[in-house]
Amino acid sequence: MRLSLNDSGYSGLVLEKLSGAGAKVGDTIRIQQEGKEYTGILMPRVQIGGDPDHIVIKLSTGYNVGVRLSAKSELERVRAGGKARRTDERDTPTPDSNLPSVAILSTGGTIASKVDYRTGAVNPALTAQDLYDTVPELGNHANVRARVLMSVFSEDIQTTDWTKMARAVAKEIKSGADGVVIAHGTDTLGFTSAALSFALQNLPVPVALVGSQRSSDRPSSDAAINLIYATEFVGRADVAEVMLVMHGETDDSFAYAHRGTRVRKNHTSRRDAFQSINSYPIFKIESTGITEIAEPIHRRDPERKLKLKPKFDERVAIVRTYPGLNPSIIDYYTDCGYRGVVLEGTGLGHAPKAIQPSLKRALDAGMVVAMTSQCISGRIDMNVYRTGVELLEMGVVPCEDMLTETAFVKLMWLLANKKSEEEVKKSMTESVVGEIEMRTEMAQYRASLEAE
Amino acid sequence: MRLSLNDSGYSGLVLEKLSGAGAKVGDTIRIQQEGKEYTGILMPRVQIGGDPDHIVIKLSTGYNVGVRLSAKSELERVRAGGKARRTDERDTPTPDSNLPSVAILSTGGTIASKVDYRTGAVNPALTAQDLYDTVPELGNHANVRARVLMSVFSEDIQTTDWTKMARAVAKEIKSGADGVVIAHGTDTLGFTSAALSFALQNLPVPVALVGSQRSSDRPSSDAAINLIYATEFVGRADVAEVMLVMHGETDDSFAYAHRGTRVRKNHTSRRDAFQSINSYPIFKIESTGITEIAEPIHRRDPERKLKLKPKFDERVAIVRTYPGLNPSIIDYYTDCGYRGVVLEGTGLGHAPKAIQPSLKRALDAGMVVAMTSQCISGRIDMNVYRTGVELLEMGVVPCEDMLTETAFVKLMWLLANKKSEEEVKKSMTESVVGEIEMRTEMAQYRASLEAE
Repeated sequence: MRLSLNDSGYSGLVLEKLSGAGAKVGDTIRIQQEGKEYTGILMPRVQIGGDPDHIVIKLSTGYNVGVRLSAKSELERVRAGGKARRTDERDTPTPDSNLPSVAILSTGGTIASKVDYRTGAVNPALTAQDLYDTVPELGNHANVRARVLMSVFSEDIQTTDWTKMARAVAKEIKSGADGVVIAHGTDTLGFTSAALSFALQNLPVPVALVGSQRSSDRPSSDAAINLIYATEFVGRADVAEVMLVMHGETDDSFAYAHRGTRVRKNHTSRRDAFQSINSYPIFKIESTGITEIAEPIHRRDPERKLKLKPKFDERVAIVRTYPGLNPSIIDYYTDCGYRGVVLEGTGLGHAPKAIQPSLKRALDAGMVVAMTSQCISGRIDMNVYRTGVELLEMGVVPCEDMLTETAFVKLMWLLANKKSEEEVKKSMTESVVGEIEMRTEMAQYRASLEAE
Repeated sequence: MRLSLNDSGYSGLVLEKLSGAGAKVGDTIRIQQEGKEYTGILMPRVQIGGDPDHIVIKLSTGYNVGVRLSAKSELERVRAGGKARRTDERDTPTPDSNLPSVAILSTGGTIASKVDYRTGAVNPALTAQDLYDTVPELGNHANVRARVLMSVFSEDIQTTDWTKMARAVAKEIKSGADGVVIAHGTDTLGFTSAALSFALQNLPVPVALVGSQRSSDRPSSDAAINLIYATEFVGRADVAEVMLVMHGETDDSFAYAHRGTRVRKNHTSRRDAFQSINSYPIFKIESTGITEIAEPIHRRDPERKLKLKPKFDERVAIVRTYPGLNPSIIDYYTDCGYRGVVLEGTGLGHAPKAIQPSLKRALDAGMVVAMTSQCISGRIDMNVYRTGVELLEMGVVPCEDMLTETAFVKLMWLLANKKSEEEVKKSMTESVVGEIEMRTEMAQYRASLEAE
């Protein structure tokens, strides 16, 4: 069922021109005016307020552009948007048997948000359905089932939300999905991708988290491209891991699929903000196809039985060290009954000597203390300097080349799933789902930091 | 005064060969054995234990290499090391009037450390004098006055140490130094370079912090090259800022001088671990000369009067936000009488809604709350999303494109030097010594992340 013109949000001059051409949302249209020509897919109007004479079309590059029509503008319908369908949780669209089945779960964030033109702020509001309506080409890549799981900004995501997401993914896989896409805010996207990597053990099909650095009703939004790439990718790629699919550079030429436990948001605003750290992205996704970059890859196998381990113990904190850090912070967490602390230390894994008595007290109380580095890139090596050796002897666990975010999530997960403190400590230094690599290529520092 | 052979640490076969050739530490020698030839400057032996038949020479590349001598080895003295001098705090070497005067202050860290071969751990031990003996070429670049200020690993550096360093630099400048080099551990080098940038206002001559990622008695040490580059640089370059001079890539071909407030240790172990963030390094230092990269530069002016502002208020904490952050941490700092918190938020400057009541309580108590981003790169923009707008309305101060480390140090400095909370808040969003740039070039993300 295609969106009718009356539901499209257009009125006045624009509605008149569209009716005249017999064009519906999802159709490819051509606009000619003042010697210029624009061809693209007609998008619904999601803005409240603003100029009513603007029409929004999606160009073949994936960008939405707004074109201001005048009475002299010529508008024609080039072809019908045959694949675009309207679905909701209860709907079962007529499936195209040549296409894979992909579930899109929306959790909120910019990729599912719109600008409130009265206040100028961006609110999480678009439903998965709206997303699907905004990106009708999705229908060319998969039989899509879109569903709103929650609607929160990613800075407000809780550990209980990870559990909820993991359960929802398991449900979709049980229902036969060939892949699952989760639309999520970018702020804590790396934490969630790590959490789902641990919660969804033994995956039969891929799961891709996808976000957007620009609100999806803005012309420069990367939401459409990221969503299309992610949908195409999880439907077809021979992989069964939790990944994060985002722009590979500032243009729209490709996206990367990063391993869920190895990726970090490294820039506040750029479209290519996400980067694999101490590792390479595992796939490059282009309109021309999907390229494998890094081995080994956990392959797709629909017969494999998913093991759902969705629980996390919240009594874990990240404590960054810095000159003058008050050691009583460690005591505070010990006294509050925390079971784990990830120390985001300096350099190879060091902490001020002044906090050692508090660390000892925490360790004596049974707390697991794990060491990562605020350098972001590189490996922990606590055997080089006396400070590191002392911390190791106290029982601090070195997290190898694991990201702080991943170590934090992993510690919460282990504490909820392992029986003893010793098992937790042992598992923190071993790879469970590719979050640790025992050898880092020197070249990966530069490669992982470069935008391409 | 050159180091006598008896003080050189060599014995047995090596001492015999050296005596036979009439070679002293600092002389250029040539070794021929088994068809191979090695030419370099004779270094003192600083290792305890190990193979007594090894001799250490510094090649023209700046690397120290150990060569194992046998009875058949031929050793000849090529030329005397004329410039090498022994000095200590009280010594006044005969100055070469063609060379600038440079003070080297040693604070500890790898650049001034040696391996304890019994435990394998690296200890801060070498004195500034040892450094100077190990790098006799320094005498070709400046009239050097070397002094040990303290001997601590950089993870143990306290805010009071910044005060001590600032005062020592001021003293050297008053004594006529054309430039000051501070040898410092790399772990918190970025914090100290920011601290000195604020403490040393209105500088007449340059100050360069320099570290080493490899222990200075190891053959692969970068200590010598970094120290030579820094000494040459502060003696001659037309600049009067606090900078950090470190390897620009993994080879020895060049170093960068980064602005002290814009630089961060981004890798645990690489020689090119330090990178300018949201900015470019300001100088490239090669053996062939010094190149200016970025404008504007605060120029050298020996007549300018230094304003020493060496105090910092320690009651400031960094609180990183993450899923499940316990809001009571903010309350804890408020109750402990803290005057400032740097929130290392997510994305454009967001924090979980759940901590807003605790933030409000902190702000009501007069605490200054400043927002930076854990993304590392990019700018804070709290006007885009509702969460950001709410925090701004509460009084949280957006730190623009400032590093978390710099914002933390700056807040401590402002609280110790400004009269009112309002002055502190205002100054946090304005550039004092180049720590904020109002416009970031998009290209700088990639450029600042690339190794060269």
